[in-house]
Amino acid sequence: MTEPTPAASGSGEPNKEPSKNALKKAQKEKEKAEKKAAAKARELAERQKKDAADAEDVSKDVYGELPLCGSKDFKPTGTPREDLSKVDQVEDKEITFRCWVENARPQGAKLAFLNLRQGLNTVQAVVAASEKLSKQMVKFAQNISTESTLAVTGLVKRVKEPIKSATIKDFEIHITKLFVEVKAEVPLPLQVEDAERPLPSDEAGQDEKESDGRPLVGLNTRLNNRTIDLRAKINHAIFVIKSGVCSLFQEFLSQQGFTLIHTPKIQGAAGEGGANVFELKYFDRSAYLAQSPQFYKQMLIASRFQKVMEIGPVFRAENSNTARHLTEFTGLDLEMEFQENYHEVMGVLEDLMLFIFKELNNRYKKETDLVRSAYHVDEFKLPESGKVPRIPFQEGIKMLREAGEELGDFDDLSTPQEKHLGRLVLEKYNSDFYTLDQFPLAIRPAYTMPSPANPQLSNSYDMFMRGQEICSGAQRIHNADLLAEQMRKHDPPIDPNGAGTKDYVDSFRYGCPPHAGGGFGLERIVQFWLGLPNIRMTSLFPRDPQRVAP
Amino acid sequence: MTEPTPAASGSGEPNKEPSKNALKKAQKEKEKAEKKAAAKARELAERQKKDAADAEDVSKDVYGELPLCGSKDFKPTGTPREDLSKVDQVEDKEITFRCWVENARPQGAKLAFLNLRQGLNTVQAVVAASEKLSKQMVKFAQNISTESTLAVTGLVKRVKEPIKSATIKDFEIHITKLFVEVKAEVPLPLQVEDAERPLPSDEAGQDEKESDGRPLVGLNTRLNNRTIDLRAKINHAIFVIKSGVCSLFQEFLSQQGFTLIHTPKIQGAAGEGGANVFELKYFDRSAYLAQSPQFYKQMLIASRFQKVMEIGPVFRAENSNTARHLTEFTGLDLEMEFQENYHEVMGVLEDLMLFIFKELNNRYKKETDLVRSAYHVDEFKLPESGKVPRIPFQEGIKMLREAGEELGDFDDLSTPQEKHLGRLVLEKYNSDFYTLDQFPLAIRPAYTMPSPANPQLSNSYDMFMRGQEICSGAQRIHNADLLAEQMRKHDPPIDPNGAGTKDYVDSFRYGCPPHAGGGFGLERIVQFWLGLPNIRMTSLFPRDPQRVAP
Repeated sequence: MTEPTPAASGSGEPNKEPSKNALKKAQKEKEKAEKKAAAKARELAERQKKDAADAEDVSKDVYGELPLCGSKDFKPTGTPREDLSKVDQVEDKEITFRCWVENARPQGAKLAFLNLRQGLNTVQAVVAASEKLSKQMVKFAQNISTESTLAVTGLVKRVKEPIKSATIKDFEIHITKLFVEVKAEVPLPLQVEDAERPLPSDEAGQDEKESDGRPLVGLNTRLNNRTIDLRAKINHAIFVIKSGVCSLFQEFLSQQGFTLIHTPKIQGAAGEGGANVFELKYFDRSAYLAQSPQFYKQMLIASRFQKVMEIGPVFRAENSNTARHLTEFTGLDLEMEFQENYHEVMGVLEDLMLFIFKELNNRYKKETDLVRSAYHVDEFKLPESGKVPRIPFQEGIKMLREAGEELGDFDDLSTPQEKHLGRLVLEKYNSDFYTLDQFPLAIRPAYTMPSPANPQLSNSYDMFMRGQEICSGAQRIHNADLLAEQMRKHDPPIDPNGAGTKDYVDSFRYGCPPHAGGGFGLERIVQFWLGLPNIRMTSLFPRDPQRVAP
Repeated sequence: MTEPTPAASGSGEPNKEPSKNALKKAQKEKEKAEKKAAAKARELAERQKKDAADAEDVSKDVYGELPLCGSKDFKPTGTPREDLSKVDQVEDKEITFRCWVENARPQGAKLAFLNLRQGLNTVQAVVAASEKLSKQMVKFAQNISTESTLAVTGLVKRVKEPIKSATIKDFEIHITKLFVEVKAEVPLPLQVEDAERPLPSDEAGQDEKESDGRPLVGLNTRLNNRTIDLRAKINHAIFVIKSGVCSLFQEFLSQQGFTLIHTPKIQGAAGEGGANVFELKYFDRSAYLAQSPQFYKQMLIASRFQKVMEIGPVFRAENSNTARHLTEFTGLDLEMEFQENYHEVMGVLEDLMLFIFKELNNRYKKETDLVRSAYHVDEFKLPESGKVPRIPFQEGIKMLREAGEELGDFDDLSTPQEKHLGRLVLEKYNSDFYTLDQFPLAIRPAYTMPSPANPQLSNSYDMFMRGQEICSGAQRIHNADLLAEQMRKHDPPIDPNGAGTKDYVDSFRYGCPPHAGGGFGLERIVQFWLGLPNIRMTSLFPRDPQRVAP
């Protein structure tokens, strides 16, 4: 609706005497127009004042807020942005870089200090008023909101005293240009500096506690605001390490001739027993999410792939609310044929893990130290001999009994017993990593090859880090008739002719070679390597029975 | 039930005259016993005969069927098994290797020819009767069932005429020891040699046809017997290439500083629109399978990860029964911040693909040639200049119109139009790979950044191989308010405060840098690189609306 002007209103209907209402209306409109004119005048005066101020502002072209990148108003500069990790190579030079603001603080009207971050690096920057640099620009710098993204230009200057609050200790930036690329809203739902600090010590994830007068933020608050939480350097380091474990897994196995496979996560029937499986609607029928690539990786060995590996999601509909269970995690799986003895495969698994540990120490030391320093965790001990302790299950039972635990020859170990055994092994072998071999047959899956030495045992193994399981594996039965028999005898029995099992069992009828393999939990490797109190910290957006968001 | 002996029957009830029936019965039992005794005698005679034969069999210790590996009766030999690809280094030497039988055929009573396979290699082997090698062993070799797994020892001998039927042409194996490790049942449900041959030419996957007198087996039969089908060399080659594309993707991006991420496949709400999403039961509520990692990879850019990549399953509940759609496929995703222009990211994507193509030609030439030879597909053409054709969408429309297609300025391209454009681009630029840039805004997702040049266009792009889409990408809106506005204006509208969208939209409130990215379909890259007629051939165990098994 267009607002009528006072003039139009006065001259619209010349032949009629204006009514009282019309007069009132006219009066109102007149007032409105006057107000409007006054506002315009004020605006003009302010603009002139501002223009005058700008005229005085010697820095007016070198600071401010940039229009949205990609919008019509945005003008590219073409200036290359530098990597802060190379700052020591450009002393006394001017560089431009993107970063974000950890905090900005004034020191009087003429000085602003900024803590700037880029990746895992932080640097101190100064905006100091001078003949060439205006007080207005200093004020602008002092008021930049935390977490805003900036384009900064400045001189790299060596400092006399190392800067404690930054990771770059020997240099600071004397800012010459300062643009806010993307402004962060205030307040933040979570402070990044709070996310840098460890969880409350009793944290299963729920409470928020006081310690040294500063609040320790609980896991749930952090996970509810995960995109802010993940900005913490400690979290970046965790996920750089996680990415690294994957690369190292693939690097080692590729060199050994493994083929990377992708097996279906949607399955027509729940093959491996049927419990703990998520059901989904698949067009006009039901389907299920894979609890592991077990059947498929073995079927590929039957298809003569010889050595296969997979990195992919694994789904467990288990209502476990512990610090080491997730309903969705990343499985590092491998399966390979062997010549005569499944210990050949155990050797590959052990060498693989030794390679990963060694290269984590070489290539990811900075990240490892950063995380461990927050949680004060001991270094991860590896056997000096390079030989991974390979302990028969029966021997493990004996060690535990001698240490006072009560358990039967063929009992599975409880989590506390596993941890206890981990301490005993560390004492005896000086290693945080070891293998238990020849588990009782009754506590393993139906496809596990029985032991030739003792029919109550099996050619199967688990691997442990700091006394907690990270891998389960075995020689698998590669003969269809024996497999079917073991499935029927299993507790609970499995139908070898079932919808989810027949194709699997039949794949061993046509000359499948002997094979063994294992499945690692990626998040557990990261958790125990770093000694983190909760596995949720190693999943970008963790899933558990209570949590499916964000 | 125990069978009564004749004696017991005759002396059981001494005080009674035997009845007629009893006499008949006794007579019958007597005959039975006599038959049994005769059978026993025959068995004994045969055994003695066999023992005598064995005594004569000079080879009796160097051939036979081995007990199940891992069982009590299995005795390891400790002999290392060799890799057949190194056979040219061991001329005139004796080697032992594992392999399987492609076929075994007699030539008289004194000669057996075996075609043996290991990985992608095949070799001819001979068992020839001599003073040192028995006719019995030759007979044994002649009768080994196809696809059985063997442990073979033999002399590596150079041949005068190249062997046409094997990949190893200059050498054959003169067998000295021959053990069946795992016997294959007969008949096979599918012949591996049939799986080596191309699909029927009209194959959308259903029919079985005759061609040159030999049956061409249809896709459904192959997929129903996938573990046999996958044994074909052509299928091994396809999946070695697929594994290679993944490695090359990671290798290139790792060197550029990308972090490998794993985002959740189970989501609490269907964020990206809601159609085509699989629903699952998640404890006492519903959840959904991720249609892409789109929201999460962007949220990680908001968490300052700068450059992220993901390789993982992608789920589409789309009832599309075409030769290029799957309900589960492998997404190769990446997302990165850029400095000033989303073309920086397009450059990374183009360089990535050029690297992959180049290294497929370098490292996977053998496998590529093997597959393409079966399907008679042209080499994949890349621009000689090394510069990928980057064609504005409006220019593409113009090219199509000049070639007779009728379509509006802002219409999406149909699949036939895409293919037509592919042919035009190939003609003009001599490249099977190119990019279309600046798509109409209306046909792209709500989070796409509008074009600064024309509000009806957008900063988005698709990439094509042989005229078919393999990648879709764009600059994303990194401002929460603009994103919410675009979501509301979208057709159909999306609620920016919905359960699946609020966390995503809010993550752009706190200084998220400008970013762009893209998602590739791994199976499509493999399909179009090799020129395969059906995408199902590039999935180990494909999933489509009709198929969830094996």
